[in-house]
Amino acid sequence: MRQAVLAKKASRALAVLSSDVKQRVLLAMAESLAASSADIVFHNEIDVEAARQAGLPSAMIERLVLDPKRVQGMVDALKEIALQKDPIGELLETTTRPNGLVIEKVRVPLGVIAMIYESRPNVTVDATALCLKSGNAVLLRGGSEAINSNRAIIKALSKAIADASLPEGTVQLLDDTSREGVMELIRLPQLVDLVIARGSEDMILHVMKHATVPVLGHGKGVCHVYVDEKADLGMAEKIAFNAKVQRPGVCNAMETLLIHEALLADFLPCIVTLYKEAGVEIRGDEAVCRLVPGATAATEEDWHTEYSDLIVSVRHVASVTEAIQHINRYGSGHTDAIITQDAAAAQQFLLNVDSAAVMHNASTRMHDGGVFGLGAEIGVSTRKLHARGTMGARELTTTKYLVHGTGQIRQ
Amino acid sequence: MRQAVLAKKASRALAVLSSDVKQRVLLAMAESLAASSADIVFHNEIDVEAARQAGLPSAMIERLVLDPKRVQGMVDALKEIALQKDPIGELLETTTRPNGLVIEKVRVPLGVIAMIYESRPNVTVDATALCLKSGNAVLLRGGSEAINSNRAIIKALSKAIADASLPEGTVQLLDDTSREGVMELIRLPQLVDLVIARGSEDMILHVMKHATVPVLGHGKGVCHVYVDEKADLGMAEKIAFNAKVQRPGVCNAMETLLIHEALLADFLPCIVTLYKEAGVEIRGDEAVCRLVPGATAATEEDWHTEYSDLIVSVRHVASVTEAIQHINRYGSGHTDAIITQDAAAAQQFLLNVDSAAVMHNASTRMHDGGVFGLGAEIGVSTRKLHARGTMGARELTTTKYLVHGTGQIRQ
Repeated sequence: MRQAVLAKKASRALAVLSSDVKQRVLLAMAESLAASSADIVFHNEIDVEAARQAGLPSAMIERLVLDPKRVQGMVDALKEIALQKDPIGELLETTTRPNGLVIEKVRVPLGVIAMIYESRPNVTVDATALCLKSGNAVLLRGGSEAINSNRAIIKALSKAIADASLPEGTVQLLDDTSREGVMELIRLPQLVDLVIARGSEDMILHVMKHATVPVLGHGKGVCHVYVDEKADLGMAEKIAFNAKVQRPGVCNAMETLLIHEALLADFLPCIVTLYKEAGVEIRGDEAVCRLVPGATAATEEDWHTEYSDLIVSVRHVASVTEAIQHINRYGSGHTDAIITQDAAAAQQFLLNVDSAAVMHNASTRMHDGGVFGLGAEIGVSTRKLHARGTMGARELTTTKYLVHGTGQIRQ
Repeated sequence: MRQAVLAKKASRALAVLSSDVKQRVLLAMAESLAASSADIVFHNEIDVEAARQAGLPSAMIERLVLDPKRVQGMVDALKEIALQKDPIGELLETTTRPNGLVIEKVRVPLGVIAMIYESRPNVTVDATALCLKSGNAVLLRGGSEAINSNRAIIKALSKAIADASLPEGTVQLLDDTSREGVMELIRLPQLVDLVIARGSEDMILHVMKHATVPVLGHGKGVCHVYVDEKADLGMAEKIAFNAKVQRPGVCNAMETLLIHEALLADFLPCIVTLYKEAGVEIRGDEAVCRLVPGATAATEEDWHTEYSDLIVSVRHVASVTEAIQHINRYGSGHTDAIITQDAAAAQQFLLNVDSAAVMHNASTRMHDGGVFGLGAEIGVSTRKLHARGTMGARELTTTKYLVHGTGQIRQ
């Protein structure tokens, strides 16, 4: 694939680019993107209209739409990433050995990153910015439904790349949006160092199954909020509502609410009233169903399910230990929260829940690259290798040992 | 698999074990292993005798043999790892966000590690020690040729585990040494968090191809030494000889020697004389073959080949840039060295060679967990994700975000 060869070549130059140059190009991209706002919105309307005609689901169309405010959000992300500390060249460890060898471990780019995604055109900007910041070349394979939006965005970003005389393989949008195109891309281990897949679970599983290149997949979220016996009930209500209702279609939304049995009488009716007003369907265990008119019985499958919708499963537990056991058994290792004023219970929960992010007195919705200060995120990993949780520029790097000797040999 | 279930259960307890307890158990293991030295050597002799009868290759038998000195080496590794800093709980980052959220990133264990290896019984000790240090449960699947040695070692190590009342799933040697046993082990993504494969390239490729669990494979090494125009020729001779001859069968031995063209007349005859005395076969490019009587012409395939034997390929280059290009094209990304007194050339080489370890004025043989101060190594990764280069206890960990809030929700 010609574009992958260009990317590999560009990656050698990008790996040794100075922090200053990268910062300047990212700020120029922000400027160019802001200046192209009207053009981007215009081309986005073509995509949105085609998506409506094709009858795409409304949630997908919602993710596709750009307006001047969303373009401004992309401009802001570019500026924030531009001003972050450069991860490349960071000295992670240094050791001087008894034989005089000096061993340094430094952060270096991965090389070429292929980004496979759907709908959301802002990923085009986020991926470009995070890859450039981390000294990687990027191959962008967006969905066919966003092709006009993505082309308009890349046109604006490419101007900044050309003005700075960066190699032409620095950022490339792939024209081929077919499934065969994806298959080719993910089977180029000599040219591509990492594939990141972000979109439907089907697409991610397909990529993981067929790739010969290492893959980081944006993981699904079966997230929990546990309301402890010692919770501030006002706070618990606010968080349990926010985690479920504020944006139910995303991976860090809560799917299962765990309630300490001592709170069934006090807390459950209040949160149920709020849920019902917001149109949330409730599936409960036996005790919950007895107390909530209209609730249906949750099945074993419910506890494993990411609804991505206004549905919540509710279970009562006898202790924080039981809550932890439920989460480690049924969760997806994404994001789980405890609401409590009891420091010991919080500590037990944070230590023992085996998830990418564990929260005390905050909504699961807060697990996000922007909220965490990464400027943007390239995805959220629920796997444990290489990167776990929200991924920014630093997660697009690897390390290298630099060894300084004076003639040392092995005895 | 019953043993994987036990390991998973044990991993929950090991994840929250204090540094003190882990240190004490590792020191007790060292003591118990030292006390069992005669028993281990006795059982090892049974394996070695059977291997001889079965006609196994002599290199494999060499790796299998234990004597009191090698057992002492294992005892020393246990002690060194015991005294290292505990990687678990290390606070990697902490951020306070404008909304008051405090976000910590801490180091946590992976969970359950399956170690698949061949011959060398010391891996049984190294893997046990590094996994315990990093709070992971381990399933050890050694080769059938070392089963009596491994059983004797595990008997000694298990005593320390039982004395400290650690869970029975902490360290388990699998009795099933069949290929089917491996297939089962590497397809348990709910129970096993990581597979490490260390042994023949065939075995590693087999594991990588069939595993549904993430795999870290010990990579092959096509390592280079580049002797620069400005090299100290005495040092270059010592290093080029050591890197090829001291132990040709291991991954960090040199396969290709690159020589600056200005040194062909001075340096080449000296190193060739040494190589010939040591019985090293020489394959060269055209210029080298003209100067070295008896050298055969290297083919394109030679530059890609890990000989693991007393064979070296030799090429002349016109500059450090050409050396870097050769290495990035033909190398396996393992370990490469430059010999030079020119700081600028060294800097260019260290920055641009895309390998796990890049060395200046040291033998490639120095890329080793023991030499680097890790106490032992669980393998050397030539891939870029998760871990690169020699892997110790820290490479057996992942991270977790701990988020401390006061009721924050997403707006």
